[in-house]
Amino acid sequence: MKIDSIGNWRRTHHTVDVKPELDGQEVTLFGWVQEIRDLGGIRFIILQDREGTVQITVPRKKVSGEVLSKSDALQKRFSIGVKGTVQKTEITPRGVEVIPKEIKIFSTASPQLPMDITGKVPANLEVRLDARALDLCREENIAVFKIQHAAVEAIRSFLFEKGFIEVHTPRIIASATEGGAALFPVNYFETKAFLAQSPQLYKEQLVMSLEKVFEIGPFFRAEESHTRRHLSEFVSIDIEQAFATAEDVMQLLEQLMQHACKVVKEKCRRELATLKHRLEVPEVPFKRLTYTKVLEDLKNEGVEIPWGEDIPTPAFRTLGKVHPYFYFITDWPTHSKAFYIKPRDDNPELCEGFDLMWRWIELSSGGTRIASKELLIERLKEKGLNPESFKHHLQTFDYGMPPHAGWAIGLERLTMMLTGKRNIREVTLYPRDRFRLTP
Amino acid sequence: MKIDSIGNWRRTHHTVDVKPELDGQEVTLFGWVQEIRDLGGIRFIILQDREGTVQITVPRKKVSGEVLSKSDALQKRFSIGVKGTVQKTEITPRGVEVIPKEIKIFSTASPQLPMDITGKVPANLEVRLDARALDLCREENIAVFKIQHAAVEAIRSFLFEKGFIEVHTPRIIASATEGGAALFPVNYFETKAFLAQSPQLYKEQLVMSLEKVFEIGPFFRAEESHTRRHLSEFVSIDIEQAFATAEDVMQLLEQLMQHACKVVKEKCRRELATLKHRLEVPEVPFKRLTYTKVLEDLKNEGVEIPWGEDIPTPAFRTLGKVHPYFYFITDWPTHSKAFYIKPRDDNPELCEGFDLMWRWIELSSGGTRIASKELLIERLKEKGLNPESFKHHLQTFDYGMPPHAGWAIGLERLTMMLTGKRNIREVTLYPRDRFRLTP
Repeated sequence: MKIDSIGNWRRTHHTVDVKPELDGQEVTLFGWVQEIRDLGGIRFIILQDREGTVQITVPRKKVSGEVLSKSDALQKRFSIGVKGTVQKTEITPRGVEVIPKEIKIFSTASPQLPMDITGKVPANLEVRLDARALDLCREENIAVFKIQHAAVEAIRSFLFEKGFIEVHTPRIIASATEGGAALFPVNYFETKAFLAQSPQLYKEQLVMSLEKVFEIGPFFRAEESHTRRHLSEFVSIDIEQAFATAEDVMQLLEQLMQHACKVVKEKCRRELATLKHRLEVPEVPFKRLTYTKVLEDLKNEGVEIPWGEDIPTPAFRTLGKVHPYFYFITDWPTHSKAFYIKPRDDNPELCEGFDLMWRWIELSSGGTRIASKELLIERLKEKGLNPESFKHHLQTFDYGMPPHAGWAIGLERLTMMLTGKRNIREVTLYPRDRFRLTP
Repeated sequence: MKIDSIGNWRRTHHTVDVKPELDGQEVTLFGWVQEIRDLGGIRFIILQDREGTVQITVPRKKVSGEVLSKSDALQKRFSIGVKGTVQKTEITPRGVEVIPKEIKIFSTASPQLPMDITGKVPANLEVRLDARALDLCREENIAVFKIQHAAVEAIRSFLFEKGFIEVHTPRIIASATEGGAALFPVNYFETKAFLAQSPQLYKEQLVMSLEKVFEIGPFFRAEESHTRRHLSEFVSIDIEQAFATAEDVMQLLEQLMQHACKVVKEKCRRELATLKHRLEVPEVPFKRLTYTKVLEDLKNEGVEIPWGEDIPTPAFRTLGKVHPYFYFITDWPTHSKAFYIKPRDDNPELCEGFDLMWRWIELSSGGTRIASKELLIERLKEKGLNPESFKHHLQTFDYGMPPHAGWAIGLERLTMMLTGKRNIREVTLYPRDRFRLTP
């Protein structure tokens, strides 16, 4: 089949912007064939683009021979351009159709697509991920990633306003940034290296110079677990702030969450409707529960956890029923948090680390960091980590480490909250998890 | 030494905002001791924060005993808080000083710092990179990264306005994205994987659904070369656009460059002054030179390059003298560009790929992409690549691949242009290159 080039054609409107008010006007539309229906003398083509769909109506007797043969050649997912006249009508839901004067076929598509692109015939997630580029064409998925985009934009401009500087820290690192969690090994020329699981140590070092920094980007965790909320490659939204405490950054975090929800609710009405998701803008301050209080709440629900132990996922699900919204968990046992989290001055058993929860999902965690080199070395040892392998980082504490605090938000989990999706792979373009690497 | 906590202290002003107009007012300042000078009965402390410096003047007889003992304990790079009164004065360049009422010492620093933090005694780059966290405290370096931050913010908002959606593509990939260039191997659980050298194939797939996408983030190249403009880990600014040609995205790129220069020149006056760099806002359109024309220009300069061969760095340096500004190089020989660059319809020997040059530095490269599966397979073979290892990508061409074009800008090279720095490691927080991994 002859493939057309764009030539001098340029899009004049997106499908959603073709409205009855344009009756009689000529428009140039680009997109893909979503559906084709024949009604005797008339052929209906549903043209889809990023913003929605519009009906192209081809009255066989009234169009040129070339338009007719082109429209007959069309199949689902052909990428096409249409030059035509807008016409008011009663027969389409949007009250408008386009009568083509010229059609260009930019590319064909396979007659056997791996799934129904209208989503009317649901496909299971594995099939969808195997044909992800096609799966992402479904209006529902486009909505998810538009919402994610709007949220990230809102978060960035919020942090800009607050005087945070965006930084780009290394992903290939010489030694474990946080110890503990599993790292992916990389062959870095002749030496062995790892993929960073967070910008933690770098962002802490940077508060010495840039004071308030943030980074949004991919990080890596060789998670053995395969759950609905873990990915081995995820996007983290990290901040670190000099001369600040946990309470300062908790207030920043709750304001940020409120702002992100507000912006998404305003800018993404159409997308939220497509997802049938009702997003509420939370009020601040968020509830603050101590770790000890959480154990009590769980006990009342019949879930007994000895003080000092981690809270397992099933318990969090119970907790999410008791507190079905945003809440902070504070005053964790020091030993249960990372080595860089500052113990409380009045009671070193407890630390100034916190988690931000949304129902049963941990959206963010952070805290006041340790600014004293001696204390940090002590904590490393308590964690069974070797201070020697952190010597480059420890060295920086000789340069005047200020008191500082920060947090990290998992973008995918945030997107689950914003879109109402319950599987983290649904909110990741090309999920990387324990059992999926290709493509 | 007793270390103070911030308690209820919060910064009221940055050093630069302490101006004579505030004469008599109380301020709370946070920062670091940059210099200390004693003049008999008076001690001068230069307090540095992210935005600049201010003089703290301690008249021994007039301050409390506690302030006196604290100020006597201070050394370079101690992180401190100062509550004091602003005082107009003739003796400081900025016409203002602060008389402390209270001083808090948040952290000490080593009496032997690896370099002079005022930068008056220059240290060589290796020494500086070994103590990078400290090196980054120098006003000049803070200026570099503030400029980079302002540029990235300007670029993002520009792309937002143009309707681009920010995406997050995988860094851990199953097979080489572009073939050719060296990749870093990663052990991905039981399977062998690689670090992505670009989002190329993913961003091309995404134009099928999101139409206009961009990504700003780290990518990886196992460059054997060790030059002043290569890093093994770099930040790439990538866009891809459906229903567009090379010319469309070249126009977008030159407007973007103009916009970024304009914003930086306006927002970063102080930083550009610190760097003694005169940034010009370029006029658009940029000069467009064909590859063939470039060879002629070089021949006139006595540099002979046979048609079809690559242009080596020394030749680019010569070219940079002939064209000392922004210019595009177009109409490259098809075989000299990546497999996904579209050959010209009228002459397949030449392709629709382009480079954006600034003097001798390649800032960006891009082009019209191949939208036909058959042609792409052909080009893969010509490049000696195995279509089988690209089957997941090739498959997506069955889903209706639209005509599309895009480009990638290297953020570090862009920052070199904006800051006047000539070594790429100067514009990278923690450079990762052939010979440096730690910390």
